[in-house]
Amino acid sequence: MSHNSFGHLFRVTTFGESHGLALGAVVDGCPPGVALTEADIQGFLDKRKPGQSRFTTQRREADEVRILSGVFTGADGRQVTTGTPIALMIENTDQRSKDYGEIASKYRPGHADYVYDAKYGLRDYRGGGRSSARETAARVAAGAVARKVIPGVTIRGALVQIGPHRIDRARFDWTELDRNPLFCPDAVMASQWADYLDTVRKNGSSIGAVVEIVAEGVPVGWGAPLYGKLDADLAAAMMSINAVKGVEIGDGFASAELTGEENADEMRAGPSFLSNHAGGVLGGLSTGQPVVVRFAVKPTSSILTPRRTIDRDGNETEIVTKGRHDPCVGIRAVPVGEAMMACVLADHFLRHRGQIGG
Amino acid sequence: MSHNSFGHLFRVTTFGESHGLALGAVVDGCPPGVALTEADIQGFLDKRKPGQSRFTTQRREADEVRILSGVFTGADGRQVTTGTPIALMIENTDQRSKDYGEIASKYRPGHADYVYDAKYGLRDYRGGGRSSARETAARVAAGAVARKVIPGVTIRGALVQIGPHRIDRARFDWTELDRNPLFCPDAVMASQWADYLDTVRKNGSSIGAVVEIVAEGVPVGWGAPLYGKLDADLAAAMMSINAVKGVEIGDGFASAELTGEENADEMRAGPSFLSNHAGGVLGGLSTGQPVVVRFAVKPTSSILTPRRTIDRDGNETEIVTKGRHDPCVGIRAVPVGEAMMACVLADHFLRHRGQIGG
Amino acid sequence: MSHNSFGHLFRVTTFGESHGLALGAVVDGCPPGVALTEADIQGFLDKRKPGQSRFTTQRREADEVRILSGVFTGADGRQVTTGTPIALMIENTDQRSKDYGEIASKYRPGHADYVYDAKYGLRDYRGGGRSSARETAARVAAGAVARKVIPGVTIRGALVQIGPHRIDRARFDWTELDRNPLFCPDAVMASQWADYLDTVRKNGSSIGAVVEIVAEGVPVGWGAPLYGKLDADLAAAMMSINAVKGVEIGDGFASAELTGEENADEMRAGPSFLSNHAGGVLGGLSTGQPVVVRFAVKPTSSILTPRRTIDRDGNETEIVTKGRHDPCVGIRAVPVGEAMMACVLADHFLRHRGQIGG
Amino acid sequence: MSHNSFGHLFRVTTFGESHGLALGAVVDGCPPGVALTEADIQGFLDKRKPGQSRFTTQRREADEVRILSGVFTGADGRQVTTGTPIALMIENTDQRSKDYGEIASKYRPGHADYVYDAKYGLRDYRGGGRSSARETAARVAAGAVARKVIPGVTIRGALVQIGPHRIDRARFDWTELDRNPLFCPDAVMASQWADYLDTVRKNGSSIGAVVEIVAEGVPVGWGAPLYGKLDADLAAAMMSINAVKGVEIGDGFASAELTGEENADEMRAGPSFLSNHAGGVLGGLSTGQPVVVRFAVKPTSSILTPRRTIDRDGNETEIVTKGRHDPCVGIRAVPVGEAMMACVLADHFLRHRGQIGG
Repeated sequence: MSHNSFGHLFRVTTFGESHGLALGAVVDGCPPGVALTEADIQGFLDKRKPGQSRFTTQRREADEVRILSGVFTGADGRQVTTGTPIALMIENTDQRSKDYGEIASKYRPGHADYVYDAKYGLRDYRGGGRSSARETAARVAAGAVARKVIPGVTIRGALVQIGPHRIDRARFDWTELDRNPLFCPDAVMASQWADYLDTVRKNGSSIGAVVEIVAEGVPVGWGAPLYGKLDADLAAAMMSINAVKGVEIGDGFASAELTGEENADEMRAGPSFLSNHAGGVLGGLSTGQPVVVRFAVKPTSSILTPRRTIDRDGNETEIVTKGRHDPCVGIRAVPVGEAMMACVLADHFLRHRGQIGG
Repeated sequence: MSHNSFGHLFRVTTFGESHGLALGAVVDGCPPGVALTEADIQGFLDKRKPGQSRFTTQRREADEVRILSGVFTGADGRQVTTGTPIALMIENTDQRSKDYGEIASKYRPGHADYVYDAKYGLRDYRGGGRSSARETAARVAAGAVARKVIPGVTIRGALVQIGPHRIDRARFDWTELDRNPLFCPDAVMASQWADYLDTVRKNGSSIGAVVEIVAEGVPVGWGAPLYGKLDADLAAAMMSINAVKGVEIGDGFASAELTGEENADEMRAGPSFLSNHAGGVLGGLSTGQPVVVRFAVKPTSSILTPRRTIDRDGNETEIVTKGRHDPCVGIRAVPVGEAMMACVLADHFLRHRGQIGG
Repeated sequence: MSHNSFGHLFRVTTFGESHGLALGAVVDGCPPGVALTEADIQGFLDKRKPGQSRFTTQRREADEVRILSGVFTGADGRQVTTGTPIALMIENTDQRSKDYGEIASKYRPGHADYVYDAKYGLRDYRGGGRSSARETAARVAAGAVARKVIPGVTIRGALVQIGPHRIDRARFDWTELDRNPLFCPDAVMASQWADYLDTVRKNGSSIGAVVEIVAEGVPVGWGAPLYGKLDADLAAAMMSINAVKGVEIGDGFASAELTGEENADEMRAGPSFLSNHAGGVLGGLSTGQPVVVRFAVKPTSSILTPRRTIDRDGNETEIVTKGRHDPCVGIRAVPVGEAMMACVLADHFLRHRGQIGG
Repeated sequence: MSHNSFGHLFRVTTFGESHGLALGAVVDGCPPGVALTEADIQGFLDKRKPGQSRFTTQRREADEVRILSGVFTGADGRQVTTGTPIALMIENTDQRSKDYGEIASKYRPGHADYVYDAKYGLRDYRGGGRSSARETAARVAAGAVARKVIPGVTIRGALVQIGPHRIDRARFDWTELDRNPLFCPDAVMASQWADYLDTVRKNGSSIGAVVEIVAEGVPVGWGAPLYGKLDADLAAAMMSINAVKGVEIGDGFASAELTGEENADEMRAGPSFLSNHAGGVLGGLSTGQPVVVRFAVKPTSSILTPRRTIDRDGNETEIVTKGRHDPCVGIRAVPVGEAMMACVLADHFLRHRGQIGG
């Protein structure tokens, strides 16, 4: 058991706070001989990095990753993993602690401030400390390693809903993601979202979102009944991301309205399936179809409208959160969700290979 | 790591198939001195037991639990836990294997049949084997032990949606649950659901549902950032239940449509909260408010309408699932969801006490 | 984490007390398709069974194992594992609780009585409860399954010392084990031990022993640096057996007196080794040579000579342990040590295959 | 499961190679509010640091630890733990890789070289890579944190045997440890050992040793039957240290020669014990007496006498290990053994508190 580890055979332990010296991850169990350089990781970190558009926090972080251990020169002269733990470190550079003064003594409604104090008796209030979404940089770095362990699998994520505005499934196009800063797969909606978010941002407000992650190329049989189910691990993985309040696989909550006839993914020779209501998972095992996960991200609690709260002494007061924040934290959750999908799949690939061979 | 275990300090390992000799659970880590008899467990098993109304499978199982180990006579003469593993066994009595002939060679669309064969090279096809919802009897038994570990916590579950029919929140009344066989907290809807399910059943069809589990009395601070989050563990727990395709905490997917102002659960002295959008969990820690979890249950794949599928040899064919089945497996998922909530909370209570004391 | 589980991918959870209804094990993670019947297990249980010679306790137990789950008919008609948890149950039949009256209120010096009461506030004093060596029947049953997972590996154990009497290494002969009831590989010493143990038994005394377990056929590379070392897991496995106070690999404590020149196991092409001081493990990984583990078993605390002790109320008193006991519990520890070796190796085989493939 | 983690509630994950950028540890689960600065850790690292006498390797390492995360300013202005993961980093400064050229292509007999290559297909041969005793610096750093979690416990270690020379128990005096560089508690033997080691060193040879670790102040009841036994965890902990080949608790292997009468630690009111053959552990639980563990350390394989071996291509050759090495690696194993004892005890303290409360 470990509060800050995830996975079993491919196991990631993260550390670090928003404003500490550094944050990072130790990736344990990565197979040996996997080509890995800092550049392989940096690209994914850059996708998540703040300050890349007006829709994300203006905090400036280089987010440069260093591989401290676990790699060496392989037979072909490339740097490869050695099978020993891979420590990844990202130093914090832009910390501007002065922005967070009021947070030290007052609890933001909807934030972890109060519960951390209640549990631990103290908290590192600078930028949210350990509860800051900054920790997700470590996840993204680990996820980049995980992708290299399952080279036949393609993992992509997109934003499919911001506030009340959902994409049109008929217009879903992965190639659109490179053309807007919102991970939006729908060209029309990308433009509408931009306008909508400008309003949210100018109001000092924030808004929720839904992220969808799809993994293609997962073979049949990964996962394990009954408490090591692939979907159970995916649910935990996504729910562990900051601000996530719901997770669904395949049709998810819409399944509640389906009949058995509608829900059945009929099969033909191949084997192939005629539909994918299951989202690529049945009985906790992958079916060979795309694994489809969605998760809901609540709006950030850091807003400019005053909210009623209490201070550390229990006195009633109000709070306004200044500083640099995301109007929609769901945007930057997309690469984080991809990383968690990669980590879960890498782990289940190794677990499957352990029990079954291959 | 264990495929069939759940929890860390309060750890449950289940075993057994639908038509094997017996199924059961080993509960490890239960504190000593907790009064426990078979009667304490049997009541919860009876709630889950099949064949209690026309809306659940007509399989007849006594579902009598025996405590094989881990209890002894305490100082006051009552039977109490000793701190050693508590083995719980339920023998299978009504197995009628002849009902399941066709399942042996064909895959039910939407069922785990195909993936089990693909992963393991064989499967116990009798009644679904390990993938049968029959395993949930073991969860319910373990959950009954878990409840005794957290006596100040009240855990209740209800069905809040069947197919397109949702309860009216204004009519939500826990006391209604004793008055209908559908775990429905809304008297009006209970009657509508009964009519609706009669139609579903007569058509040989099935329908999905949404279950809500509420835990009251959970103190602030249970849980652990960042991968031992209370909500991450709840998500895994619920997603591990048969046929579950989505899990949400508090406002869940509806959070995606909320602004930061709407979503913030403002605080007053006490401390108290003015709302519970968070569903009792912030930053992975309990807030002291009711913990509210919902999960979506898909319709069972066992239906009378022929569906296209393949057989074990890969040939295209059709299948009709005869036998005794539930028109809405969501109904019997209610006590199972309660049990999983109890197990997660008992585990986090012990984990919290380990790290923090008390 | 689990107090009563062992292993990771091949994971064994045991339950049961000396005088409860039953004891047993749940084996999780066993690969599918492994031929397994109760007869495969029973032979090993019979080796461990009490009452087989005058040198072991006269308690009579049938020790009949039942497989409750996890097996089914395979393609060739044989019963094979399915990849789901294998529950093994052994009912307790000869319990004669009346023998243990005095133990209920007094602590046997050198026994777990006092510490169980101090930790748990109560204990099942009948026959030692959970701390009884009777639990090792569950280990032996699980070990029989483990052996089937690693068919190329031969695991054998022998007693190499009883009290001050050590075997002569020059006379070591595995085939002698079938000719004496003491697992003695030295024909001369077997006879001396028998005389010696008769004296010990007649005096109502007990004596310690050293057991050696050898696994042949383990390929190079099983294990994992640095906290999943093969030898670290073997050390934990053996130390977890009742009454064990020391564990060593290869030359063990004798290594302290060796120079680097003496200790080096030189290598030749093959690769082959010119010696095996390492006992088949270097850097936590198997070398391909026989894995050699020895463990010391202390004398049982159940003796007829009065010993000073206290009762549950803290009053000073004396105790004499009547009942049926082993003069040398080390004898029956031999099949238990074999079982633990098998479980550790099966686990590391699967872990190796998970990380490396094959 | 994690290859490079140790413990459950107090969980340590280490990373790093001998000649990588840095090595370190992530300590997860440390209770909040524990005063902790780098100075608290540095003292223990300095004890282990190489190059402090002519009896240890002349490699020069600053071994300066930095706390990257998990601490913050507490209520009293001191730096304290926050309950979040504590990342500890030690940069490698003196790497002199040129010393290790021959090791790249040849296997040192008695070293992990061959098995790493066989398992992983490559290895970081610089200074032994991950298998270098340099990793133990991370253990010592983590152990310093562990000590702060169990302030009432005193942990001390000593060398009790070098080669054939054992200390005289009658002269055992903890205060002697400050007067010699060999962690020797026997003033007479310290001087003899120095002479003996000078000879070993001048011959370019090496020699084994036995280390004893004693923990005083451990209350009764820490540990957990049957696979979470305190002594099983101690055995794994010590066996996981480089070059350790045997572990014993209390009388250990000498128990094999004791009768039940001799071995029984009789009890008197208090409760108190009249002896401590058990080494402070019975039935896997602490007794309240000092916990006494000994472990055997084999001689290092890095010696100047040529040994027969093979190269990476399987060709027969000889090897002489130049470079800077310890004539007796057992010396520097003393603070490492202390650290492992501290980690195991901190973990069991938290586990005990979780299950039992307090």
